[in-house]
Amino acid sequence: MSTDFSQADHRYMARALQLAQKGLYTTDPNPRVGCVIVRDEEIVGEGFHLRAGEPHAEIHALNAAGARAQGATAYVTLEPCSHTGRTGPCAVALREARVSRVVVAMIDPNPEVSGRGIRILEQAGIDVAVGLLESEARTLNPGFIQRMALKRPFVRLKMAMSLDGRTAMGSGESQWITGPEARTQVQRLRARSSAILSGVESLIMDDSRLTLRAEQLQLNNADDVIRRQPLRVILDTHLRLPLAAACLREPGRTLVLTTPDHVEEKRHRLTQAGAEVLVLPAGSDGRIDLVAMLQWLAENEQVNELLVETGATLAGAMLDAGLIDELQLFVAPTLLGGEARPLFALPGLSRMADQRRLTIHDMRAVGRDWRIIASPQPMSASGAFSESKVP
Amino acid sequence: MSTDFSQADHRYMARALQLAQKGLYTTDPNPRVGCVIVRDEEIVGEGFHLRAGEPHAEIHALNAAGARAQGATAYVTLEPCSHTGRTGPCAVALREARVSRVVVAMIDPNPEVSGRGIRILEQAGIDVAVGLLESEARTLNPGFIQRMALKRPFVRLKMAMSLDGRTAMGSGESQWITGPEARTQVQRLRARSSAILSGVESLIMDDSRLTLRAEQLQLNNADDVIRRQPLRVILDTHLRLPLAAACLREPGRTLVLTTPDHVEEKRHRLTQAGAEVLVLPAGSDGRIDLVAMLQWLAENEQVNELLVETGATLAGAMLDAGLIDELQLFVAPTLLGGEARPLFALPGLSRMADQRRLTIHDMRAVGRDWRIIASPQPMSASGAFSESKVP
Repeated sequence: MSTDFSQADHRYMARALQLAQKGLYTTDPNPRVGCVIVRDEEIVGEGFHLRAGEPHAEIHALNAAGARAQGATAYVTLEPCSHTGRTGPCAVALREARVSRVVVAMIDPNPEVSGRGIRILEQAGIDVAVGLLESEARTLNPGFIQRMALKRPFVRLKMAMSLDGRTAMGSGESQWITGPEARTQVQRLRARSSAILSGVESLIMDDSRLTLRAEQLQLNNADDVIRRQPLRVILDTHLRLPLAAACLREPGRTLVLTTPDHVEEKRHRLTQAGAEVLVLPAGSDGRIDLVAMLQWLAENEQVNELLVETGATLAGAMLDAGLIDELQLFVAPTLLGGEARPLFALPGLSRMADQRRLTIHDMRAVGRDWRIIASPQPMSASGAFSESKVP
Repeated sequence: MSTDFSQADHRYMARALQLAQKGLYTTDPNPRVGCVIVRDEEIVGEGFHLRAGEPHAEIHALNAAGARAQGATAYVTLEPCSHTGRTGPCAVALREARVSRVVVAMIDPNPEVSGRGIRILEQAGIDVAVGLLESEARTLNPGFIQRMALKRPFVRLKMAMSLDGRTAMGSGESQWITGPEARTQVQRLRARSSAILSGVESLIMDDSRLTLRAEQLQLNNADDVIRRQPLRVILDTHLRLPLAAACLREPGRTLVLTTPDHVEEKRHRLTQAGAEVLVLPAGSDGRIDLVAMLQWLAENEQVNELLVETGATLAGAMLDAGLIDELQLFVAPTLLGGEARPLFALPGLSRMADQRRLTIHDMRAVGRDWRIIASPQPMSASGAFSESKVP
């Protein structure tokens, strides 16, 4: 297995990554994958995975290449699969097409099958190289990778805020802090997510629909994208969701997660109103156990990327539990003042030493607003909880 | 008077602006001015104003040019003065040096003398052109221009905040939210300001020195810069400033502004501790009238740029009164939570329609932090106070 890559290798893999990106909003729960087949410095086939149940990227590319695949190099953004899907294992298809070299950006993150596709190719005498533009390939599928490797979704928290860190007026009024361009970005975050999580409190306040709307997505394939509505997940410890909640009348599924010991009747009526009600064990504080909830969503609903759209309390609880992988903050150039609602509750945070440090990855203008992409620094590095570690 | 400028004109005026910038931290209360003298496409003299009491930019440039000034073009960032200073009016000096053309970026903002320098030149048959790179020239001297034109300082509010809009923990602990690079930028904001304004509440909390420190300025001429310490102005309605306040022991003046009817003794003791105590009329709410305070500072202390370093209450009051010209927010990538102190108090702001919209002019990384430069949009445009305008 070689790890020596030419400039041309980089160019073709970059193209494969670009192709994979085309499946960003449609492959769920499958990963986004792209493939390019090159013979004599000419691209003879290209493909990407579009939708679960349809052919993988490699099959599309091989079909396009036909006989010209023989002796060619295949560039794939993810290790070719070794299992038999609808079109058979891609590793076998590449072998049978008699490609002479396969360049793979990253191996399969599923520890149970990882490396098997590469083995099939190598056993057939095909030259396999792994790791080209790997970090770029990983950013294509943060959720799929996390679900496979850690058995939980990649959790992305989205918040719209004023420059003074407020998400709504004291009354709860919040429409609209950010402008239409930011709302389009939020629609796209929803579109790439398997599920959207909200607390019942903010759902009652905003009566959000939590759906994709074709006209707001501003994508050429918007009509295609909205065929899959992300699963709506509502944390509702005391089963307070109103039967008239707007989200219950929208296309797609609404899953209400609650704790035991609720009146059977309310559960029944919510189910009749269109919700699926699921009872999860409560934590020691009587609330739904957040870690168990995430594991459940990964295992039972194949949730790769989970978008959290909620208020300060649930956002703070998830941050404090170290469950947020990424924050996307949409910041409007406006001030709402000290009586408006805070971004994160973070009860008990009273010393500078316990502040929650973030790493900022990107900051850019989105219409008249700004989008900040950040991730929480590990608690130990930020000083939070450091006391509990010192005897 | 022509307004037709060549590429070469632009280049030389840009150089003059660059020279003017060298006086950024030292000319106060005079404006920053640069001058370039060009003959036969060659720069024969350059100069800038360094410090009040020393020669103006034109005099330095003419001295450098000597006899070569005859028939040359002079580029000046501000209309040459017509009054007799230590070195005589610059307009007369240019005339006597027999330059043939003078290009001026902007006319003198003082309505009482504006245009007089140009008239002196034109009456001598010198070709005068005005308005080249005028907006760039205006940004050199926002405070001087505002003091001359509106009789009040340019007010710049600086705040250091977390990403969730918090300036300190609930306890008041705030050292340090931002990193050393941001603090250097704040030192430079102080250095370009005539005065620093703070409320007594935040001064009691932080015991700030409100001084320039050579080592933090990170400037080649830092030792020169700190020869002028900005005037410290403390708003202290009830004369609560502790006699042991650190700022009273620092180089430079501390001016405590208070309202009538305070025990003569406390005033006396504060004066003995190093403060100057001044009684200003109170507004209808019993507090110091902010508009009157700004006018007083412009008229009596020649304050061009006023840097406000204070807490949410005074910052909110100044914002609500429409007295903030520019905000500089230093944003640290950290979260302090909902119990921490807010950026602006803005009492009574309860509806989205009344939000305070800002225009963002610049956003950039400063070390691990971000600096946002913004200005409040006029109240009417943001919807604030709109009700009071409708009968």
